[in-house]
Amino acid sequence: MKKQALKFEVLKVDKHTGARHGVMHLPHGDVETPVFMPVGTQATVKAMTPEELKDMVGSSIILSNTYHLYLRPGHELVKQAGGLHKFMNWDRNILTDSGGFQVFSLGDLRKISEEGVEFSSHIDGSKHFISPEKAIEIQNALGSDIMMCFDECAPYPAEYEYVKKSMEMTTRWAKRCKDAHTNVENQALFGIVQGGMYKDLRQKSAEDLVALDFPGYAVGGLSVGEPIDIMLEVLEHTTPFLPFDKPRYLMGVGTPDYLIEAVLRGIDMCDCVLPTRMARNGSALTHYGKVVVRNSTYSKDFTTLDPDCDCYTCKNYTKAYLRHLIKADEILGARLLTIHNLRFLVKLMEDVRNAIKEDRLLDFKNEFYKKYGYER
Amino acid sequence: MKKQALKFEVLKVDKHTGARHGVMHLPHGDVETPVFMPVGTQATVKAMTPEELKDMVGSSIILSNTYHLYLRPGHELVKQAGGLHKFMNWDRNILTDSGGFQVFSLGDLRKISEEGVEFSSHIDGSKHFISPEKAIEIQNALGSDIMMCFDECAPYPAEYEYVKKSMEMTTRWAKRCKDAHTNVENQALFGIVQGGMYKDLRQKSAEDLVALDFPGYAVGGLSVGEPIDIMLEVLEHTTPFLPFDKPRYLMGVGTPDYLIEAVLRGIDMCDCVLPTRMARNGSALTHYGKVVVRNSTYSKDFTTLDPDCDCYTCKNYTKAYLRHLIKADEILGARLLTIHNLRFLVKLMEDVRNAIKEDRLLDFKNEFYKKYGYER
Repeated sequence: MKKQALKFEVLKVDKHTGARHGVMHLPHGDVETPVFMPVGTQATVKAMTPEELKDMVGSSIILSNTYHLYLRPGHELVKQAGGLHKFMNWDRNILTDSGGFQVFSLGDLRKISEEGVEFSSHIDGSKHFISPEKAIEIQNALGSDIMMCFDECAPYPAEYEYVKKSMEMTTRWAKRCKDAHTNVENQALFGIVQGGMYKDLRQKSAEDLVALDFPGYAVGGLSVGEPIDIMLEVLEHTTPFLPFDKPRYLMGVGTPDYLIEAVLRGIDMCDCVLPTRMARNGSALTHYGKVVVRNSTYSKDFTTLDPDCDCYTCKNYTKAYLRHLIKADEILGARLLTIHNLRFLVKLMEDVRNAIKEDRLLDFKNEFYKKYGYER
Repeated sequence: MKKQALKFEVLKVDKHTGARHGVMHLPHGDVETPVFMPVGTQATVKAMTPEELKDMVGSSIILSNTYHLYLRPGHELVKQAGGLHKFMNWDRNILTDSGGFQVFSLGDLRKISEEGVEFSSHIDGSKHFISPEKAIEIQNALGSDIMMCFDECAPYPAEYEYVKKSMEMTTRWAKRCKDAHTNVENQALFGIVQGGMYKDLRQKSAEDLVALDFPGYAVGGLSVGEPIDIMLEVLEHTTPFLPFDKPRYLMGVGTPDYLIEAVLRGIDMCDCVLPTRMARNGSALTHYGKVVVRNSTYSKDFTTLDPDCDCYTCKNYTKAYLRHLIKADEILGARLLTIHNLRFLVKLMEDVRNAIKEDRLLDFKNEFYKKYGYER
């Protein structure tokens, strides 16, 4: 058997919950879990340099999007550049999604068949076809450390029969992805559990994927519009069917409460565009709740954004200045809020890890929610 | 006599030209001249942090705009924040313009009288009045190290009589600015020579302002649309009427050739939005001429932007990646090109200073122009 790209160790399980602290040994360094992964859609985490992600945010892994890079600048070009790490000057780990979620989000612009998905580019309308094999080819060319199987993300709400067929196809596609992927010593391929909000389908999906033996598993198709209680119930039902000794990745989740609740249910990895998008819209996540920086309340507020934050922005700038930058549409405003929001979530996961190590995650959660003004 | 905010020393004059190398001792550190000053219109040099301006660009002084800060966030707010340096987290020097140029650029939105200028805000249409005294009050509140007198910048072309009257009023306004400015130990107030393209008016303006004894002098109203030969002729005619031992500032000039030609005619300071604006539009200044990074020529160009540049961007990224970022409208693209363009001009002035020290500025100019593909 070939050497594997990913080695995962669970170092500690919280005594009172299912939360785990572990480490992923990957080709571009170790990643401590639970971890929040910033999203770098187009070969850049919006508004950030790699140095800022390392030194100011503290990221050991980021996510990038197969669909976007396939269309622009093209995976062949990235390969010619020496791979995505070299192209974007990032020497830590990269996880690429499979493009599935973006392609399915195109709605009328795509057509699904057993073979794969035909779609029109959102940039220029040109026609394309992505199959499971193609998704692997693209991700091999990009050279990400963790790749994702091409899956169909069923919408919410959706009929049982539709979700069942979709989930079964996703499993068949996962098998095809696995067969197409040969570079296992440098790139770890994760399976994606689907099944909508139907518990039996989630179980079946998890079991069939586990039978295929992937080095890690994602839970997809959650946080797609359903109420949080349903989401958490389905998640709680799903993770027990995943192997203890493999990392578990909940896709597209990024609010502080979702992160904590996910970890409590045994999740190790999360990603979301929320912190970077919120920043560009002029809002911040803080220990005392969301701050809409552009509000006039802050025009003469010469205090820091979040007194409990250790980031560059909170150490050097006032809310009044940040508000001025946002109101004046200055790039620096988006930059400073992005640094803060990303650092906030990465640091939250550091705090969560420390809490797990000391078996006090539930206390941590209660204190965090109280300060944050969140009731659950 | 009160201690003065600015002490200027000429350290060396090029043997073969009128170019000078000197140093301005200012409240926020020394500034070696000739110097290019990046423009921070709205209390931020667009897309840059203060640390980047110091560590990556090497700036010792930046410019900010009185008109813009007066309207948003307001000079009183900046004063409450502890002044402009503290507000924007910049501990080196700041030069503020007087707002004159911006106000006069408003065209139909402003009305000039002996007392001052009435104008409507470009943001919300609200009515305002700026007099010479008001321009000083605003700049005092901002707390810049170098302030500019409120002047009228005559358009090009303009009739002799109009320019004469305008220049004479600018001189009367300069006297009023000087009388209104009392904080001379912390802020140096420069006079601005006007007179359009008329040499006798330039001489008269310079002589009358010199009689008022300012710690430094700007040459305004050039590079406003006239051919470069006329501009240089007027400049060459003007600088000899300015005192040798005071800094001379040519306003709004920023192409490499204009900077070099200005220094050859005895100019010590320049500023321009060109490098930052070009960057946001996807173009770069390089030792081998202008590079339109968004051109498809560079789509697979995995070489550096400018092999002779020492900046962060040139050390870490390829033209192909920069083009991708610009095409994809990514903030990082604007950032990386801004770092490069600013470093390019600041470094150009460092090279110019070194050439002056060794009496080889003409050789430097010829070599630079040859490489740059510029004929003069």
